[in-house]
Amino acid sequence: MHTAPPDPANLFARRQQVAEALRAVLPARCVLAEPEDTRPYECDGLAAYRQLPMVVVLPDSEAQVIAIVNVCRQLQVPIVPRGAGTGLSGGAMPIADGVVLSTARLNQIIRMDAYSRTAVVQPGVRNLAISDAAARHDLYYAPDPSSQIACTIGGNVAENSGGVHCLKYGLTVHNVLRVRMVTIEGEVVELGGESLDAPGLDLLAVFIGSEGMLGIVTEVTVKLIPKPSTARVIMASFSEVGAGCNAVADLIAAGIIPAGLEMMDQTSARMVEPFCKAGYDTEAAAILLCEADGTPEEVEEDIARMTAVLQAAGASAIAVSQNEAERLRFWSGRKNAFPAAGRISPDYYCMDGTIPRKRLAEVLAGIARMETKYGLRCANVFHAGDGNLHPLILFDANQPDEFARAEAFGAEILAMSVEVGGTITGEHGVGIEKINSMCEQFTAQELEAFFAVKRAFDPLKLLNPDKAIPTLNRCADMGKMRVTGGVLKFPDLPRF
Amino acid sequence: MHTAPPDPANLFARRQQVAEALRAVLPARCVLAEPEDTRPYECDGLAAYRQLPMVVVLPDSEAQVIAIVNVCRQLQVPIVPRGAGTGLSGGAMPIADGVVLSTARLNQIIRMDAYSRTAVVQPGVRNLAISDAAARHDLYYAPDPSSQIACTIGGNVAENSGGVHCLKYGLTVHNVLRVRMVTIEGEVVELGGESLDAPGLDLLAVFIGSEGMLGIVTEVTVKLIPKPSTARVIMASFSEVGAGCNAVADLIAAGIIPAGLEMMDQTSARMVEPFCKAGYDTEAAAILLCEADGTPEEVEEDIARMTAVLQAAGASAIAVSQNEAERLRFWSGRKNAFPAAGRISPDYYCMDGTIPRKRLAEVLAGIARMETKYGLRCANVFHAGDGNLHPLILFDANQPDEFARAEAFGAEILAMSVEVGGTITGEHGVGIEKINSMCEQFTAQELEAFFAVKRAFDPLKLLNPDKAIPTLNRCADMGKMRVTGGVLKFPDLPRF
Repeated sequence: MHTAPPDPANLFARRQQVAEALRAVLPARCVLAEPEDTRPYECDGLAAYRQLPMVVVLPDSEAQVIAIVNVCRQLQVPIVPRGAGTGLSGGAMPIADGVVLSTARLNQIIRMDAYSRTAVVQPGVRNLAISDAAARHDLYYAPDPSSQIACTIGGNVAENSGGVHCLKYGLTVHNVLRVRMVTIEGEVVELGGESLDAPGLDLLAVFIGSEGMLGIVTEVTVKLIPKPSTARVIMASFSEVGAGCNAVADLIAAGIIPAGLEMMDQTSARMVEPFCKAGYDTEAAAILLCEADGTPEEVEEDIARMTAVLQAAGASAIAVSQNEAERLRFWSGRKNAFPAAGRISPDYYCMDGTIPRKRLAEVLAGIARMETKYGLRCANVFHAGDGNLHPLILFDANQPDEFARAEAFGAEILAMSVEVGGTITGEHGVGIEKINSMCEQFTAQELEAFFAVKRAFDPLKLLNPDKAIPTLNRCADMGKMRVTGGVLKFPDLPRF
Repeated sequence: MHTAPPDPANLFARRQQVAEALRAVLPARCVLAEPEDTRPYECDGLAAYRQLPMVVVLPDSEAQVIAIVNVCRQLQVPIVPRGAGTGLSGGAMPIADGVVLSTARLNQIIRMDAYSRTAVVQPGVRNLAISDAAARHDLYYAPDPSSQIACTIGGNVAENSGGVHCLKYGLTVHNVLRVRMVTIEGEVVELGGESLDAPGLDLLAVFIGSEGMLGIVTEVTVKLIPKPSTARVIMASFSEVGAGCNAVADLIAAGIIPAGLEMMDQTSARMVEPFCKAGYDTEAAAILLCEADGTPEEVEEDIARMTAVLQAAGASAIAVSQNEAERLRFWSGRKNAFPAAGRISPDYYCMDGTIPRKRLAEVLAGIARMETKYGLRCANVFHAGDGNLHPLILFDANQPDEFARAEAFGAEILAMSVEVGGTITGEHGVGIEKINSMCEQFTAQELEAFFAVKRAFDPLKLLNPDKAIPTLNRCADMGKMRVTGGVLKFPDLPRF
C-alpha cells in the first residue's frame, strides 16, 4: 500500500534504490533520475501545480512496461502514467516518491487497415498523426481535442477526450474498439473488440476515462471513418445571449445533429477578433458556429434546415461559408480563443463544466453575476451542442489574491453545473484539479462504487493514486458530502 | 457466500424461512413460494434448461427492492433478476435455493420529456411501450430486439440488446443515459447522466450487459430519437453467397451506414417464403435487405448509392420498395424467420456469434461443412452489417441424440467465430448457454479482471451467481483455458 512520502533525507536513498532496480531491467537511456532530467515532467497542462517526480521511465516496448510494473509493485512505488502532458486537470502530476511512466517512446503505428477501417497504434502516437497516416485512404480518426497536434492516443484514452466534432462523432469511448493494457500485476489484458458488442463485462468503457488508475495502455485499436467530402459552416449573430441559447436547443429539437455547434459570448468575440480577423460580429451578444458535413447534397440540405431554425430563433445576422478558406476563417476565432485569452490577460483558468442544454441561458447569467462577485472577467466559449462550457476566467497571478479568486470562481461554476443537473467535467477529466468538486457530484455510495472497481484492478493503490476520486474522508473534511436517497450508511468507510 | 444447494429435505425448511422473512417486509401478493405459483418462472427463452426457483418476489417499488436485497443478503440467498423472461441464453434461469426477483410490477413510465428527448421508466416497462408512448412526440426508442413487443427495458439493460437497426442506431448501451440501481448492500446508486461524458469511472457501460450480476435496476433513463420521415428497403439477390458477403463489405467500405443490413441464405429464404409470401427469390444463394431512412432526399441519395454498390458487387436482381406496405412485406420474411423455422422443424437452436465482416463468406462455408459433419440442417439469417450471425440449427429433440448434436454444432460455430477474430455472442448474452465458450474467448487474466469487478459489486456472490463468467476451474476442467502473451501466472486462482 502506498503511504505518506518519506522525508527528504530518505527520499534520496529511495530514489537510488528504485532507479537501480529499474536500470537492472531497462536500458540506461530509459531511466531518468536526476532532477535536471526529470524537471520537464514536473507538471502537465495544469501548470499551476508542480511536483518533481522521483524517477521518470520511458519504456520502448510492452515487455519493458511489464518489467517496470513488476519492479514498482515489488518496491511499492506509485506509478503516474503520462502521455504528451497536455492534460488540463493535472492527471499526470507527479508524486514526490513516485515514478512517472512516459509513453513517449511507444510511438509506432502498428497497422492501418482501410478495409476494416481500423488502426492499431501504440499509446504514444499523436492524435493527429493517426489521421495524417489514414489520409491516404481518405479516412480519419474523428475525436479532435484542441491539443490534437501534440496530445497522444494514450492520453486521449485516459481522459476520454472529445473535441469540437464530438456532438456528431462521439468521444474517445465511441471511437476506440480495443485497448491492450498491462495490469499492476504485470499481466497483459485486452479489453473490447471489433464487434458492436462483446461478451463479459464492458471493461473497455470503464477503462476509457479512468485517468491512468486501472492499468498502463500499450496498444489501442481505433475506428477510422471516411473524410466527409464537403463541410460548410454557418455563423449566426444574436443580440441576446438567451436567444442564442434557445437556438441551440431548437436545432437539436428539430432533429439536426450538426458536425460542430459552438458558441462564443461577446467578451470572447472581442478578445479573438483583433487577433484572428475571423469576421466576427463584435456587437452581437453571442455568436453561433454551426457546421454541416457529408456529401454536397447532405450539406446543402442541412445548411438550409439549420438556417431556417436560426432565423426562426431570431438570429440578427447569418453568414454561410462559401468555400473552404472561408470555413477555416470562421473557425479560426473559435480555435484560437485560448491563445487570444493569453494575449489580453496575463493568466487564464479554463473550466470544463457540462450542463443540460436547456439551462444554458440561466448558467451564463449566473457566470455574469460571479464576474462581479469575484471581480474577474470571464470569456465564455463552449461546445454548445453538448452543453460543455469552457469559461475562461481571466486573472493575473502576480496580483496577490487573484489566483485564489479565480479558483473560487471556477469552483462556484462547477457547483452551479451540478446544481442544474450537469457535471463538473465534460472532457478534461478530474485529475487533481476537480477532485474536491467530485464530492458535490457524487454520493458516498457512488464514490465507493468507483473505489470498489479501482481496488479490483489496483488493490495496492499504486496506479496514479489520489487522483480523480476523492476519499470519503476528504469529502467529509470539506463538509461537502452529498447525501441522496436517505441515510448515509457506510459500514467500512475509509478502506481506501 | 453462496454454496452448494441444500438437500431436498432441507430445501423445504429453507423455503419456509426465506418466504417468511420476505413476507415480513413485503405485501403477501408480492411473494410466491408454492411450486404451482413459481412454475411459470422455471425457464426463460432458453427453454431447454429448467429449474424451479425456491421463491419468486414481485416488488412494487424501489423501497421493496431494497427490502428484498437486505433480506437475501442477511440470509445469504442468491437472487436471479428477471425481466420478461424472453432472453435466449438462460440469464434468468432460476437457482434451486435462490430467489427470482421479477420486475414485472415495476412497469410505470415515470417521465417523458420531448425537449430533452428522454424518457425515465421503471425496468419492467416493455421496449415497445416506450416507443408507443413517445410516438405522440414523433420520437421513439431505437434498439428493437425481435422480442420488443414483450421484452422489458430492464432485461435489455442486462443483456445490452440490439436489433435490426443497431448498425446505425447502436445497442442498448448507446441509447441508455442513466441507470438507477440497488446494490447488494441495499444502497441506491445512479450510474451515468445526460451529458456526453461524466466524471469518474464509466460504470454505466460496465453495468449495461452485466446480466444481472452487479445490481438490480430500478429506473432507466433512455434516449429518444426522432422518427425518420421516410424509409425504403432494397432487396438484392446473389447467385453466390460469397458475392453477397462481399457486397456487405463493399457497402460499408463505401462509407454507407444502412439503417438495416440483413442477409439470408437460400435455406432461410425457402423456409420463410411459403409462410410469408415476402417475394423472396428462392433461386438466389443469398438475399440482402438494405434499408435507408431519414428525410426523403437522404433516403433517395442512399438508395441510389447502395444500388450502385450492389450492382457493382454482382447482384443478380435488385428491387426497391415503392411504398410502406411493400417495405413491410420485404421485411416480413426476415422478421418471421424464427417462427418459420419452428414450422418446418420440430426444434431449432438459434446461435449468436459475431465475426469480422470480411470473414463472412469463409464462416458460412465452414457452417455448410458442419451441416454434413453433424447431419443437421442450418438456416442462416443474420445482421450482416455488424457481422452478427444467427444460424438456426434445425433438429428434433425427440430423436435420441439430435439435441446433443445441435449443441455440439452450435459450440463449433462459436469456436470458429472466436478463431476468425469474432466473439461468441452478438446480442443474446452469455447466461448459462455460452459459459463454456467464454473459456475460448478470454484468457485467465481477462476472466479474472471480470471477476475482480464482479467482486467489487457483489463480494458474497449473491447476484445471479454462476452465470456469464466461467470460473477458471471450470475452464481448466474443460481443458479449454486460452493462454496468450506467455505464461499463465495466477497466484490465487479460484477465489470465486
